Amino acid sequence: MSLLTVGSVAFDAIETPFGKTDKIIGGAGTYIALSSSYFTKDQKIVSVVGEDFPNETLEDLQKRGIDIEGIQVKKGEKTFFWSGKYHNDMNTRDTLVTELNVLGEFDPVIPAAYQGVEYLMLGNLTPAVQKQVIERLDDRPKLIAMDTMNFWMDVAWDDLMETIKMVDVLIINDEEARQLSKEYSLKKAASVIMGMGPKYLIIKKGEHGALLFGENENVFFAPALPLEEVFDPTGAGDTFAGGFIGYLAKTDDISFENMKRAVITGSAMASFCVEKFGTERIENLSQDEIYNRIMEFVDLASFEIKKELV
Amino acid sequence: MSLLTVGSVAFDAIETPFGKTDKIIGGAGTYIALSSSYFTKDQKIVSVVGEDFPNETLEDLQKRGIDIEGIQVKKGEKTFFWSGKYHNDMNTRDTLVTELNVLGEFDPVIPAAYQGVEYLMLGNLTPAVQKQVIERLDDRPKLIAMDTMNFWMDVAWDDLMETIKMVDVLIINDEEARQLSKEYSLKKAASVIMGMGPKYLIIKKGEHGALLFGENENVFFAPALPLEEVFDPTGAGDTFAGGFIGYLAKTDDISFENMKRAVITGSAMASFCVEKFGTERIENLSQDEIYNRIMEFVDLASFEIKKELV
Repeated sequence: MSLLTVGSVAFDAIETPFGKTDKIIGGAGTYIALSSSYFTKDQKIVSVVGEDFPNETLEDLQKRGIDIEGIQVKKGEKTFFWSGKYHNDMNTRDTLVTELNVLGEFDPVIPAAYQGVEYLMLGNLTPAVQKQVIERLDDRPKLIAMDTMNFWMDVAWDDLMETIKMVDVLIINDEEARQLSKEYSLKKAASVIMGMGPKYLIIKKGEHGALLFGENENVFFAPALPLEEVFDPTGAGDTFAGGFIGYLAKTDDISFENMKRAVITGSAMASFCVEKFGTERIENLSQDEIYNRIMEFVDLASFEIKKELV
Repeated sequence: MSLLTVGSVAFDAIETPFGKTDKIIGGAGTYIALSSSYFTKDQKIVSVVGEDFPNETLEDLQKRGIDIEGIQVKKGEKTFFWSGKYHNDMNTRDTLVTELNVLGEFDPVIPAAYQGVEYLMLGNLTPAVQKQVIERLDDRPKLIAMDTMNFWMDVAWDDLMETIKMVDVLIINDEEARQLSKEYSLKKAASVIMGMGPKYLIIKKGEHGALLFGENENVFFAPALPLEEVFDPTGAGDTFAGGFIGYLAKTDDISFENMKRAVITGSAMASFCVEKFGTERIENLSQDEIYNRIMEFVDLASFEIKKELV
């Protein structure tokens, strides 16, 4: 099935305890599109870059079967740039630089060829822009998933509420779920957030895995692979989202059982992402590597228990 | 199979955001024995209390099939007392009072009838006392599991190392695993700790579940039930240990596959424990309640994924 990803295509400069990078390619849209490209070949992206963005990177996306007609290239302007430094525990980071540049006045354009798209992934962006994308699609996609972050809860609460109301799946981390719901218990938080509109909620917990909440009190606890080393967490959440939505678009099944598989797929993709700086690790995966990694998750979580032994 | 539990039988006074208790019955030994009593009826306990300890509580343990011959009652002395106050997040607490009393000079006595015991659970205690118990058993039990805490890493490192070397399963939390191994990555921590002796390591992560590490790089990620409310976390870790060792003693199978089931059983028991103050919730569970709770864990963690869909 066809998938539309909306999100930043950008430059990042990253410092971790293992080293630092100059400006490298980043952005939520980039990570999502790269990750989902392993699952669906009918993929489109809406984004905006400046004149300084390398044409080869856009061509590379195209070679992966991603339709880049929706990426606006703004003459005389600069690409979004983020720079951050991770602390030793890799769970917290300081933002050193945020230059919005072209993202500051991003007016998403939906090419005619994108209309009729069946799956929509809204990467983390201004909630009003995420909403515009939904409104500019002639037909509502079969499934709309959305990522956001605490920053928008602080500065754009009303817009965020309007956008959240329009989506099917919200994907956030545990800290964001607590801030959004004003509840500490993630179970209570899920119930409050699903009251805001989404039928499904994914709470990402980093090294502790992810929770998927659905209708009828359905809950799924996805494990995370215990890793020797997290080299660079940048983009792991977006890579998760890409694997999740890519798997759904590939299988075209939005039952809770299949959403579980999509969460595992997203988790497997994210576990690759953190192994190297930036997008490096998720640029050249083989289908076998992905399958084997997913099987590691199966081994990690599987157990059988029989009534007579309880 | 027969199970010997060693651990404090004590008084606690607990304050949580939901209320506070006067002196109630607590202690690692109490929680472990109560929890495992649902799985094995051939259970013995070694502990020490003061003259102030209520006889009815000892009789109650006996009624549950627990052999209490190994609980020394010290005339003219007082029972161990701990008082603590939990913070709002329920993950951290302040110790208000610790009165060692009879535990200060605990010299564990193994009744003759206890010899030949097959499973041994060493609750959190001075490492030298845990070691004495192992040494005072004529035959090494089939499986020895041990709990400990960061306090002993600070004040009794050498004794701790000697005791850890003698056990098969070490059960600690994530913070303790990091302190013990001096590694942040739990995967690296597990490898360091298993180098100290134990063939199995369980790292408890509270609301994030538990990890079981075994030989040949075996890892199992057990979920935790997302709870609306944690009423009182006191004893949850001991209740986990009791469910774990009780299940192993019942099934007498120490394969990695069965250890997974034991971890799930322990997690289910711990999820009951936190629902009420102290031991209240785990005093009167039915086998059906336990079975249904374990099935909630099965639902929570189960997924199926097929190669052709990756």
